[in-house]
Amino acid sequence: MKMVAASNGKEYIDRINRLKTKVWINGTQVKGNISEHPAFSGVMKSQAALYEMQYDPKLKELMTYKSETTGERIGTSFLRPTSIEDLEKRRKMIQTWAKATAGMMGRSPDYKNTTLMALAAAADILEEQGPQYPENLRTFYRYAKEEDLSFTHTFIAPQVNRSSLHYESDDDIVAARIVDKTSEGLVIKGARLLATQGGITDEIIVSSSGLKMFEEPFAYAFSIPSNTEGLKFICRESFAYDASNFNHPLGSRFEEMDSVVVFDNVIVPWERVFVVENIEAANNLYSKSSYKPLVQHQIVSRQVVKAEFVLAVAQLIVNTIAIGEYPHVKEKICEIIIAVENHKALLMASEMGAKLDKWGTMAPDVNPLSVAVLQFPKLYPRFTEILQLLGASGLVTIPTEADLHSPIKGDLHQYLQAANENAESRIKLFRLAWDISMSAFGSRQTLYERFFFGDPNRLTQALYHEYNRHTLTEEVKKQFGI
Amino acid sequence: MKMVAASNGKEYIDRINRLKTKVWINGTQVKGNISEHPAFSGVMKSQAALYEMQYDPKLKELMTYKSETTGERIGTSFLRPTSIEDLEKRRKMIQTWAKATAGMMGRSPDYKNTTLMALAAAADILEEQGPQYPENLRTFYRYAKEEDLSFTHTFIAPQVNRSSLHYESDDDIVAARIVDKTSEGLVIKGARLLATQGGITDEIIVSSSGLKMFEEPFAYAFSIPSNTEGLKFICRESFAYDASNFNHPLGSRFEEMDSVVVFDNVIVPWERVFVVENIEAANNLYSKSSYKPLVQHQIVSRQVVKAEFVLAVAQLIVNTIAIGEYPHVKEKICEIIIAVENHKALLMASEMGAKLDKWGTMAPDVNPLSVAVLQFPKLYPRFTEILQLLGASGLVTIPTEADLHSPIKGDLHQYLQAANENAESRIKLFRLAWDISMSAFGSRQTLYERFFFGDPNRLTQALYHEYNRHTLTEEVKKQFGI
Amino acid sequence: MKMVAASNGKEYIDRINRLKTKVWINGTQVKGNISEHPAFSGVMKSQAALYEMQYDPKLKELMTYKSETTGERIGTSFLRPTSIEDLEKRRKMIQTWAKATAGMMGRSPDYKNTTLMALAAAADILEEQGPQYPENLRTFYRYAKEEDLSFTHTFIAPQVNRSSLHYESDDDIVAARIVDKTSEGLVIKGARLLATQGGITDEIIVSSSGLKMFEEPFAYAFSIPSNTEGLKFICRESFAYDASNFNHPLGSRFEEMDSVVVFDNVIVPWERVFVVENIEAANNLYSKSSYKPLVQHQIVSRQVVKAEFVLAVAQLIVNTIAIGEYPHVKEKICEIIIAVENHKALLMASEMGAKLDKWGTMAPDVNPLSVAVLQFPKLYPRFTEILQLLGASGLVTIPTEADLHSPIKGDLHQYLQAANENAESRIKLFRLAWDISMSAFGSRQTLYERFFFGDPNRLTQALYHEYNRHTLTEEVKKQFGI
Amino acid sequence: MKMVAASNGKEYIDRINRLKTKVWINGTQVKGNISEHPAFSGVMKSQAALYEMQYDPKLKELMTYKSETTGERIGTSFLRPTSIEDLEKRRKMIQTWAKATAGMMGRSPDYKNTTLMALAAAADILEEQGPQYPENLRTFYRYAKEEDLSFTHTFIAPQVNRSSLHYESDDDIVAARIVDKTSEGLVIKGARLLATQGGITDEIIVSSSGLKMFEEPFAYAFSIPSNTEGLKFICRESFAYDASNFNHPLGSRFEEMDSVVVFDNVIVPWERVFVVENIEAANNLYSKSSYKPLVQHQIVSRQVVKAEFVLAVAQLIVNTIAIGEYPHVKEKICEIIIAVENHKALLMASEMGAKLDKWGTMAPDVNPLSVAVLQFPKLYPRFTEILQLLGASGLVTIPTEADLHSPIKGDLHQYLQAANENAESRIKLFRLAWDISMSAFGSRQTLYERFFFGDPNRLTQALYHEYNRHTLTEEVKKQFGI
Repeated sequence: MKMVAASNGKEYIDRINRLKTKVWINGTQVKGNISEHPAFSGVMKSQAALYEMQYDPKLKELMTYKSETTGERIGTSFLRPTSIEDLEKRRKMIQTWAKATAGMMGRSPDYKNTTLMALAAAADILEEQGPQYPENLRTFYRYAKEEDLSFTHTFIAPQVNRSSLHYESDDDIVAARIVDKTSEGLVIKGARLLATQGGITDEIIVSSSGLKMFEEPFAYAFSIPSNTEGLKFICRESFAYDASNFNHPLGSRFEEMDSVVVFDNVIVPWERVFVVENIEAANNLYSKSSYKPLVQHQIVSRQVVKAEFVLAVAQLIVNTIAIGEYPHVKEKICEIIIAVENHKALLMASEMGAKLDKWGTMAPDVNPLSVAVLQFPKLYPRFTEILQLLGASGLVTIPTEADLHSPIKGDLHQYLQAANENAESRIKLFRLAWDISMSAFGSRQTLYERFFFGDPNRLTQALYHEYNRHTLTEEVKKQFGI
Repeated sequence: MKMVAASNGKEYIDRINRLKTKVWINGTQVKGNISEHPAFSGVMKSQAALYEMQYDPKLKELMTYKSETTGERIGTSFLRPTSIEDLEKRRKMIQTWAKATAGMMGRSPDYKNTTLMALAAAADILEEQGPQYPENLRTFYRYAKEEDLSFTHTFIAPQVNRSSLHYESDDDIVAARIVDKTSEGLVIKGARLLATQGGITDEIIVSSSGLKMFEEPFAYAFSIPSNTEGLKFICRESFAYDASNFNHPLGSRFEEMDSVVVFDNVIVPWERVFVVENIEAANNLYSKSSYKPLVQHQIVSRQVVKAEFVLAVAQLIVNTIAIGEYPHVKEKICEIIIAVENHKALLMASEMGAKLDKWGTMAPDVNPLSVAVLQFPKLYPRFTEILQLLGASGLVTIPTEADLHSPIKGDLHQYLQAANENAESRIKLFRLAWDISMSAFGSRQTLYERFFFGDPNRLTQALYHEYNRHTLTEEVKKQFGI
Repeated sequence: MKMVAASNGKEYIDRINRLKTKVWINGTQVKGNISEHPAFSGVMKSQAALYEMQYDPKLKELMTYKSETTGERIGTSFLRPTSIEDLEKRRKMIQTWAKATAGMMGRSPDYKNTTLMALAAAADILEEQGPQYPENLRTFYRYAKEEDLSFTHTFIAPQVNRSSLHYESDDDIVAARIVDKTSEGLVIKGARLLATQGGITDEIIVSSSGLKMFEEPFAYAFSIPSNTEGLKFICRESFAYDASNFNHPLGSRFEEMDSVVVFDNVIVPWERVFVVENIEAANNLYSKSSYKPLVQHQIVSRQVVKAEFVLAVAQLIVNTIAIGEYPHVKEKICEIIIAVENHKALLMASEMGAKLDKWGTMAPDVNPLSVAVLQFPKLYPRFTEILQLLGASGLVTIPTEADLHSPIKGDLHQYLQAANENAESRIKLFRLAWDISMSAFGSRQTLYERFFFGDPNRLTQALYHEYNRHTLTEEVKKQFGI
Repeated sequence: MKMVAASNGKEYIDRINRLKTKVWINGTQVKGNISEHPAFSGVMKSQAALYEMQYDPKLKELMTYKSETTGERIGTSFLRPTSIEDLEKRRKMIQTWAKATAGMMGRSPDYKNTTLMALAAAADILEEQGPQYPENLRTFYRYAKEEDLSFTHTFIAPQVNRSSLHYESDDDIVAARIVDKTSEGLVIKGARLLATQGGITDEIIVSSSGLKMFEEPFAYAFSIPSNTEGLKFICRESFAYDASNFNHPLGSRFEEMDSVVVFDNVIVPWERVFVVENIEAANNLYSKSSYKPLVQHQIVSRQVVKAEFVLAVAQLIVNTIAIGEYPHVKEKICEIIIAVENHKALLMASEMGAKLDKWGTMAPDVNPLSVAVLQFPKLYPRFTEILQLLGASGLVTIPTEADLHSPIKGDLHQYLQAANENAESRIKLFRLAWDISMSAFGSRQTLYERFFFGDPNRLTQALYHEYNRHTLTEEVKKQFGI
């Protein structure tokens, strides 16, 4: 028995390299160690550094907790909270990781770990399918936390036809579906979208959550190793255009990659199946558990850090070129401050209003979190707009690292100095602002936040239906005799 | 010694009637009992009902507290908080009053009581002017809470010239200033603006807070009885156009009136003077005390109730005419929900982050409150816009109480019924929505919220300067080597 | 034969008074001359003044045209345009009337005159119902223009249930429908909404335009005199609270009143019937004629004047209290300038792109007009918001006319003076701004503009479907090989 | 004498290659033919194609005009308009070029050609400096149009310190200034920002236009060849990351590059000097000539094409994935339609309101153009936001050209097909949308439009001061007796 179940960075990288997952990018299959491929080396290094923090003596207490069953130290993001203190510990741990990535890794391990924990905590919901299914889920959760596995997941069907009336025919399979069940397991064929970090995680979790509406062949939930036979990850163009941390300070480190996942008659072993052909179970697993408050608590914790990061960068621009006197500049900075304070308050309020759910899990109040998750898709793009408006021409007159070591470096030091920074610091700052708000990496971050927890139109509808305002309306009716 | 210092409704009305304050409206001076004048009878009745709640056996514990010195029960809004529990008690009390007025009385007594408490708690600030000044303030606070006095105040100079370069000459006095100091006291001449409830309170507090910039003759703070010799309140047109609670459900009850206050060589006795010709003291009293967090805590508590009230009315419109299915309707309701949840969370966060100030007062965290107070001026007008968009033609086809008791009542019952309400309930609801969003009373409420705590442009500047983001910028500089 | 068919003001007032139309307000039926009733006297005087302009020697050429058939002079708003010059003449005439009312009379006679002209010009559309129907419409148009009749109309069903699935049962009639056809004519029972100026016009035009979806009993179009047996107008509360032109400069003049129209088995003579139980004809009359471009041309012409009026008032506030130096003030004024310039340009563009329709009518380009009509509902409310933001406290510290003639007038002249105006001018200006943006009259104007040509959501859908962008998409496909 | 003065594509490329201008990029000086350098080859090819259109028999009449003096055919963008027909011809020519570049080349030759024409047309303004200066400008304009020269220009000082109080010391030169005047010419030292296309044009125009405030050493205007001794162009990182027209359909073609221009004691020959140490002349040249209406007419003509291009791409996304039924989708498309129609109308209105200026140049009405130029910086970023909101996940699951020719092409054809397009067309479309709204190239376009004609805050101030609304305010004062 290891004393520490949590992975360190090297273990993570070695495990992923050993998998030899089938990953295609720009017409070629990745060969050799994926951690050395230019499209993945930056993000894998950053992810490894996160795992490494679990071993940092100063952070260990926060980043891990002691397993009640094995006594080993487990990553805190797997911790099922049973008290408000647990929620606080989770928040602090999540924000510590988020700070290390400037909030730019939406799929840092805590995201899926939280999901898995939240679902396993309410595995009883799967009971009606037969006792093996909740057990499969609980067993897998234990296994995952003790091995500190990493995950990707897919949550949408290919965007072939988004019309509300569209149903896919059986003959022309696009969206991944159950095509057979054998003694070995389920057989899955078709594609699923948007596996972020697809190809650089131990496992892939696949479920029906997020699908618009579906029939039984689409009602499933399972997890399988990324290198399962028949599984293929097809990547988009990498936005890690430049490996220099100076030139592309974010893209070179945090470009997580997104991929289409193709299932070519993939067999999912029965012990890894959590939901099978049961629409109700597939829905309930997400809607009746504390999945939504717990995962949104993780999301908002990260978003707060990301928002504060942008606030800092915006303020640094203001300081650097000395534009703090202008009313419109103050107003823009205040816009971010206002957003940060609201977001922080909603997070706090969710913890203050937390209650034990029926399985004994301490679930944060879902209302402030749903509101936070609904408003961030409008706030974050506005933040990047503010960076553009403050940085202005400074964002398109930034030389590269090579320029600063070339014969023209004297010109740069003279002509690109700033009121309150030398040219090198100023260039670094503007490159950072550019990589948040204007690079292909940055724009993908913006798009990602727009849709992080689903289409905002659907989130709005959900809030409308879930938010209890009956007491308020009754009070008004009584007060005014209506 | 009374066992209860707090006023009841009758005491309040009798006291005000006895004052015979000089109040002018529509070219005529109010004669006789002001509580019977059509412009004031509605709001005085509502205010009396608030005081009466202090005697309601079910509410007494909440609405009052026991004086440590006299053992009497004092109105809770005078309570100087020394613990987070005190802040909670204050919030609940404030919101109980706010619910009784649908948040429509911005000058319900708790507002100025809180101000007076907050200033008196930090009276030491006035020490440098001489020991009598802090003592004057503390004595007056004690007197006010034990008599449960009501207040108006004035916070802006006449809007003659808002140019930043404008200074008033000594020869042509407009803004009220100190023109003399005699053995009796200060002599004040000139005008001040916007005494809401001017003429129907025991006293008027006058200070320099809120003035753009000022010189010594404008640096003062004092309180005097409303009927002081030389004092005159000039009212605007009353928006209590109709005394029927059916026709104008809000205007008939909560029209507080605004007035210009004219000082015609008014003598302020020395024992009522808190600041005199001392710009620094005048500023510090507001900026160095816990005035801002404590008063903003009162304001936001009320705003939350008002926001929830509008949410309820909006939802009732949706229910009544059955428009809940439309995406744009859901989105509009969610806009209000989002605002309500943010506002509630900011209020909670201010209490969670409360700290004792140097005089032992438990001051809420000012940041979330400043943000709340800064955003409400944009939110509330949008709420009224949403009511208009949902109510549409229904808001301009509403008959009166008299119509429902006339020969055409049959037509009304038939043709103005709603999907989920009878005609009378529907008419009441739409009249309520109209009185929030479209009547002269309602529009004045909207304007009031736009400027409640001052010009939003100045609030933005204040937030920009007060909000600490140095830690954040330093972290980013370190992380990215800037 | 008169040489002038156009009415003068006295003729209009006398005709309306003679009708003795059944008008109910605040539980009482109007008796005696309606032009002397406080709810109607202001607007009827203003309307009479419009008619009178047709006789003003300086304006006569513009305000009227010579009938080809009778040689009489007819009001220009009845002119069927057959050239771009005709469109220009129509625009100038419409704007001349609009200037006289500050754009505040949405139902000045030109609005319905334009409608009637546009429908009659395409009366052939009704041919399939039988030759008498187009003839009825053409004959009525001739009669109307030669008598210079005034009209109200109703365009929506009572707001009982706005759900998309709601159908009214036959047993419980709410929306006005055909209940019988006799030798005398159609028999109509039920109610219709929002007859603005209902009760103070010669006739009422009733049609199915604007109904969401309907069945045959609701498919009709006709015009009948306001005093037809069985017809009743039920008014809302009058917002002409004060007859003083000083105190309520707009409400005292232009409060048009809105009413519910009740049809109690009203008989519509056959010669006045244009559409009967024919859904296609009812729709085509509006969608296949040049109704939309011609009426929108009238609407936008008026809106331009109204927008310019608000711009002027906003600028006058800026001048009066000397706030023009502040960037946020400049930005707000520029917001209105931008809106004005766009609106004017769209109107110009519609004339530049005008084409003859198949009946020889010169129809303006509908696209710029539909865009203008779709954006004004967002612009106008913003204008009123800007007035509130600029006027601030000045909008709730305005005395009345009586105050200026009372013993306190000296105080007012001293304390309410402005940087660039004396107190009286300043009070007049702020009363005007208040009556645009804050009075019950003003708010009703705002609501009216929000929904002037129908629910903006439906207008958006219409634009989406009507706007041709096929050429653009084909070009891009070709250029980029898609 | 050539019959055609206008360049063809080859001439342009050969001329630029021959210049051997000093261009630095990523730490290295460009050697060899710049037209073959990966950072410049795409855009130079596109620019050459524009010149080539001047020889297209179908377009020649439009793209060129016959010189009155030489009889040669000159590029239409050099045409000084003297009639409304000339303005129309100019607009059509500009839009023809703009269509060829999807409006993505802000510095297509017509932009600077228009500037030069507009300034030369009003060269008399320079008369007070001495007769040689207007003559220099006119001579240079003749030379430029007859040789069909290409230009870059620089319009801002380095962003060292944007504080309003900042003045640069003489000892530490940053912003380019006159350091000496010799018999040869002016001597210039320092830097200027944002020469778009810097290094790939024949000449560079340098003037004080756009500087915030300046002193005499900064008051100059001249044009010199790009390869003048002492001149250096320092480029930012190239956003032409991928030369494939399939992968980066816009970036590979239209990446214009921006550069810092360094003047190392550059000598400007006297015959090329238009303004020297004369602040008034420097300002008047831009503010008193018809520069603003003429250049804005060029800008808005291009913006209309760009807006229509985005509208088409947005609509193609809607068609491709069949989302046209959703109200929020319709609303987003209509947002673009509304913007397009307003922009087109403003352009039309500027031509309708054109007037001859005092030098006989037909100047479009400046008001609608200033409004258009002021609103585009808000509209265009919103367009790209709409593309992101419509394209959603489809924008980050797009494979590359290589993928479509690889072993996995079958998967792509199956799983990335769309409702109304095959996989290849759909991928091309989404790549195009991505390159508008999300690539580094696209974001730079967005930034560029935000600041195209200067800081929007300053444009707002200018509009506030230039827009005549005196007539409107006087009318209101008269009408309401203010």
